[in-house]
Amino acid sequence: MSYDLHMSPDDFRRRGHQMVDWVADYLENIEQYPVISQVKPGEVRAALPAAAPEGPEPFETVLRDLDEIIMPGITHWQSPHWYAYFPANSSGPSLLGELAAAGLGVQGMLWATSPAATELETVVVDWMVDLLGLPTEWKTTGRGGGVIQMSASDSTLVALVTAREQAAAPTDTLVVYASDQTHSSLEKGARIAGFSHVRSIRTDAQFALDLAALQQAITADRDAGLIPAFVAVTVGTTATTAVDPVRQTATIATREGMWCHVDAAYAGSAMICPEFRHHQDGLDLVDSYTFNPHKWMLTNFDCNLYYVADRRPLLDAMSILPPYLRNEATLSGDVIDYRDWHVPLGRRFRSLKLWFVLRHYGAEGIRRFIREHVRLAQDLAGRLEADDRFELVAPHPFGLVVFRHTDGNEATAQLAKHLNSSGRVAVTPTMLGDATAIRVSIGSTRTTADHVDQLWSMIGELA
Amino acid sequence: MSYDLHMSPDDFRRRGHQMVDWVADYLENIEQYPVISQVKPGEVRAALPAAAPEGPEPFETVLRDLDEIIMPGITHWQSPHWYAYFPANSSGPSLLGELAAAGLGVQGMLWATSPAATELETVVVDWMVDLLGLPTEWKTTGRGGGVIQMSASDSTLVALVTAREQAAAPTDTLVVYASDQTHSSLEKGARIAGFSHVRSIRTDAQFALDLAALQQAITADRDAGLIPAFVAVTVGTTATTAVDPVRQTATIATREGMWCHVDAAYAGSAMICPEFRHHQDGLDLVDSYTFNPHKWMLTNFDCNLYYVADRRPLLDAMSILPPYLRNEATLSGDVIDYRDWHVPLGRRFRSLKLWFVLRHYGAEGIRRFIREHVRLAQDLAGRLEADDRFELVAPHPFGLVVFRHTDGNEATAQLAKHLNSSGRVAVTPTMLGDATAIRVSIGSTRTTADHVDQLWSMIGELA
Repeated sequence: MSYDLHMSPDDFRRRGHQMVDWVADYLENIEQYPVISQVKPGEVRAALPAAAPEGPEPFETVLRDLDEIIMPGITHWQSPHWYAYFPANSSGPSLLGELAAAGLGVQGMLWATSPAATELETVVVDWMVDLLGLPTEWKTTGRGGGVIQMSASDSTLVALVTAREQAAAPTDTLVVYASDQTHSSLEKGARIAGFSHVRSIRTDAQFALDLAALQQAITADRDAGLIPAFVAVTVGTTATTAVDPVRQTATIATREGMWCHVDAAYAGSAMICPEFRHHQDGLDLVDSYTFNPHKWMLTNFDCNLYYVADRRPLLDAMSILPPYLRNEATLSGDVIDYRDWHVPLGRRFRSLKLWFVLRHYGAEGIRRFIREHVRLAQDLAGRLEADDRFELVAPHPFGLVVFRHTDGNEATAQLAKHLNSSGRVAVTPTMLGDATAIRVSIGSTRTTADHVDQLWSMIGELA
Repeated sequence: MSYDLHMSPDDFRRRGHQMVDWVADYLENIEQYPVISQVKPGEVRAALPAAAPEGPEPFETVLRDLDEIIMPGITHWQSPHWYAYFPANSSGPSLLGELAAAGLGVQGMLWATSPAATELETVVVDWMVDLLGLPTEWKTTGRGGGVIQMSASDSTLVALVTAREQAAAPTDTLVVYASDQTHSSLEKGARIAGFSHVRSIRTDAQFALDLAALQQAITADRDAGLIPAFVAVTVGTTATTAVDPVRQTATIATREGMWCHVDAAYAGSAMICPEFRHHQDGLDLVDSYTFNPHKWMLTNFDCNLYYVADRRPLLDAMSILPPYLRNEATLSGDVIDYRDWHVPLGRRFRSLKLWFVLRHYGAEGIRRFIREHVRLAQDLAGRLEADDRFELVAPHPFGLVVFRHTDGNEATAQLAKHLNSSGRVAVTPTMLGDATAIRVSIGSTRTTADHVDQLWSMIGELA
């Protein structure tokens, strides 16, 4: 067999340089694109052939189609004008780490299948414990440990399953609690794990979990013969970055024998700055914690960190050892096999990109990055507050500002629509109870004061 | 704030070219490394500092540590001497597609968050239906549809949850069936989804599901008041690539009202060649199907394809729509939102690399690739069979050959140990019942007849 069907090493080098330049050009010119794609449903699909090619096609053709067919259908999450949802950071060192990991192409399911993939992961998740001021017991040198997963949805599912297994009672007698501002992944994870009772607990005027309502719900469920099993605490909710009271909720959870899971998917990155850590005071009492360096820590998706205070219940819930995965290292107990820390068996070498990021920026660089976005958000909030056309609808402890037009829902919806259809920025319209509001999330890798000034001008003009 | 903390565009270009060359050099020189890493537990970890750097570090230092600390801990899955587990293919076009996707850094959770990411995915999963000869009803133009997930474990979990929701009976009354050769992800998925009854069904002399034993188990469960709900059929088991009888099992499933899920994680790629499709005859009767282009179709991990014959029960089980994800396109019903097709919310633009691969190789190139590996495996099986020191322990319909030393378990285990400790190849020792056996999986991207000749010489010398 002739292996001319593979790309030759020289060709890979040449094409690789070309692709790197393509990415560099894209990121340099990203402000020239409309932030939100203008294509209509079906347009991209219609431009592509209905069948795969039978024979090989030149790489130039693929690149041409990438530019001509795919790019118009891209919404530019890496734009500095990206204020929608939450940021999905990327950075030079992260992309280089991703490339190296893809090139190595190892499967880190077991220590034995590539020891460095496991040990570097252990090192960086332990580093992050110190960087974020998390309880030192969460290091793998303590009773706990961290693992890299794909998304906070995956982590929350693992937490729910571990709690369910710990509870050792029929699932339909177990109850899950979370505030009405909790991310949808909690409800989805609970459904997947088979919980039939999920209580949506009222929030206070700040959109934080109402402890009295939580306690009432627990009491009512106990009276009905049910078993409170799990409570989710959010540090930085999706709608407004509200902060649930961690210590008080965890205290209730401890008293009630419930699993306490903290979702800091977005705000966790901010904890690299000590001044934000008071928002999650009480972590010494919780069972699990999840946050996404792929949101606001310069590391491209996917990179979610999941920590447990005690790794034993996690391993009890997740370990299965078939004969073809048996090996000396695993049987010795001297090593970590991360496949036992989550649902999937296979896993990419994701720690490499996080390691590249931490070393390129250093802790101080990431702190500067986070603090600047928070400063810009506070600044924007001040301008909105000082203008009587607008009102803030929620506290803004991090990089998200949520506001509305004082003329009401229709004016607010129109403003969001005009901002987004301008092609110049992307924001997220949302509902808080009956009120329409606009989320402005400041955290894109290259968003600066100039960009936020432009946004502010647009808001003023369109209002 | 000065943004000198980010890597400049010029620096990214320069470092990017350097990293591409690093990957190209690695792949060109890969045969110089011992295939299996020789490090001891803790060695890599001990060579890394206990804390993250406070300030930035030069990229040269990171690259130096990559070479000096990480590389000795790498087990080389991309080596042409890799015969362990199953292949984890990579290729030039796939790496370039991965790089482009990382550079774009879009989140394809909804159609609206980057239409091209959704529509290209739809196009390539539909292309694959034709390429693999799957039922045309599985295209998104039919009643079914495909989606890219991380791993077969994730797909199998989704199938189990969908079946559980469809059954609409208490989970502890539902029963899951699979052969005793089924991948561990079935048991793990069942545990996560909360099933308490998982039956491991006896296999025949060819390690394929014994239909009589399946029917007996179903009858016994019905008699005990339980509800048969799910059966997994494997096309190409992990231990020996055994093939369960798809049509007969699916016929039983249809009669019993059970969900029938096909796991073709490894062998699915072979179906691009029509001559292998008889192994999965009966797909017109099944509910779901999973296979991994990231194993044996030149696409680097992660890239798993999951198909359903009817997308409605899947969407019913997986959809949750919070206010911050509401948007016109979703509400119109004109678009696909892939977040409703699996557990996680966030998702990478994984279709890009599969598209690059399909266009670079064309269907014919992939067929040549698969056929050559199967030919090499048949060739090796013939040599083993002709040598009275060895015996084959299972049929070898694809690229995997499983054999043992006729002197017994100890001789077989020693042979595997010597092969692996030579540093020149990697194989997987396993157990089939009480018998030790050696799995030789031929499917690495650049494995040629010369490599398999070398392996055969080593086996002969060490036996």
